Amino acid sequence: MKLYDLELSGNCFKVRLFAALANIDLDIIPVDFLGGEHKSEKMLALNPFGELPVFEHNDVVLRDAQAILVYLARFHELESWLPSNAAEMADVQQWLSTASNEVQHGPNASRLVDKFGYELHKPTTIANSERILALLEDHLQHNDWLALARPTIADCAVMPYVALAPEGGVSLADYPAINKWIARIKALPGFNGMPGIAK
Amino acid sequence: MKLYDLELSGNCFKVRLFAALANIDLDIIPVDFLGGEHKSEKMLALNPFGELPVFEHNDVVLRDAQAILVYLARFHELESWLPSNAAEMADVQQWLSTASNEVQHGPNASRLVDKFGYELHKPTTIANSERILALLEDHLQHNDWLALARPTIADCAVMPYVALAPEGGVSLADYPAINKWIARIKALPGFNGMPGIAK
Repeated sequence: MKLYDLELSGNCFKVRLFAALANIDLDIIPVDFLGGEHKSEKMLALNPFGELPVFEHNDVVLRDAQAILVYLARFHELESWLPSNAAEMADVQQWLSTASNEVQHGPNASRLVDKFGYELHKPTTIANSERILALLEDHLQHNDWLALARPTIADCAVMPYVALAPEGGVSLADYPAINKWIARIKALPGFNGMPGIAK
Repeated sequence: MKLYDLELSGNCFKVRLFAALANIDLDIIPVDFLGGEHKSEKMLALNPFGELPVFEHNDVVLRDAQAILVYLARFHELESWLPSNAAEMADVQQWLSTASNEVQHGPNASRLVDKFGYELHKPTTIANSERILALLEDHLQHNDWLALARPTIADCAVMPYVALAPEGGVSLADYPAINKWIARIKALPGFNGMPGIAK
């Protein structure tokens, strides 16, 4: 299982994080993002969206972090991390959508501006960040985990860019429940950090 | 199965569309969106995100269109629409993420500005729209369906806001493969339209 990877990418970290927690071996292939390698002919053939991560296993190629989490959980039949019954799978799915929507366009986008110089509309990314952080804080005041009262791929998909929010100028100081949830994830066996998310 | 619904919402239409194609009965409950009913105490208790659709079945409550599609497909064991094996489920998941991310913040966001007066940054929504439409056009030039060479919930999740793009000032005239794909979906048995997406 190959992960075309950028160490500083929260989307790549979602996959590395889940692999570490679920004890899945990945062959990590660093991609020279700052040098534009993700837009090379070879990488665009794997992922026309021109983004990282990209995942390859036999003839399966995936271009989306959430889809890679689903693949790893289903391939290894990790029901605890992604149940196959309708109600529980859908509960997890809600948070995969939140990762792709509100978190991507909130704290992730804010960080893209500050850390990588993306020309996005910062007031929008800040407003999006504040909205989703408030919703997460409220949810986590009454729940230890995002879905199913236990760690799932939902936590792996949502946590990275929330924890990295300060790198986009979004403070987490006023969100005690979010901070406790991040600490809870860090305390899971196998957890490994990334730059900006200390172990 | 109750769907708290807004007829003009593409996210609600995703669910109505899949239910129509898969012959699933829904109890449609119209919500007075323009009157703010989705922010009422009752609706916020069902969905703290304050959005539509909301879905309720026995003790299952879901707040995200993609998650509702997953629930309906898994509950009715519609393997053709959402396979349970790792590779095929992950292929579908990629496009559920695309619906939540690029389509939501492209054509959907553009339409929210033009049709409902949302104060979003229009140049961003237009740029996002053009990017995802080009990627979809390229994909659909070589594929009849988004995933698995057949209709899946991926098509139900992505098509509505693509088809509604002109309502956000985004023309589809230059995207022949996208138009053929929309026509292909409209030709499926059971298809039903919505305002802006003629049958």
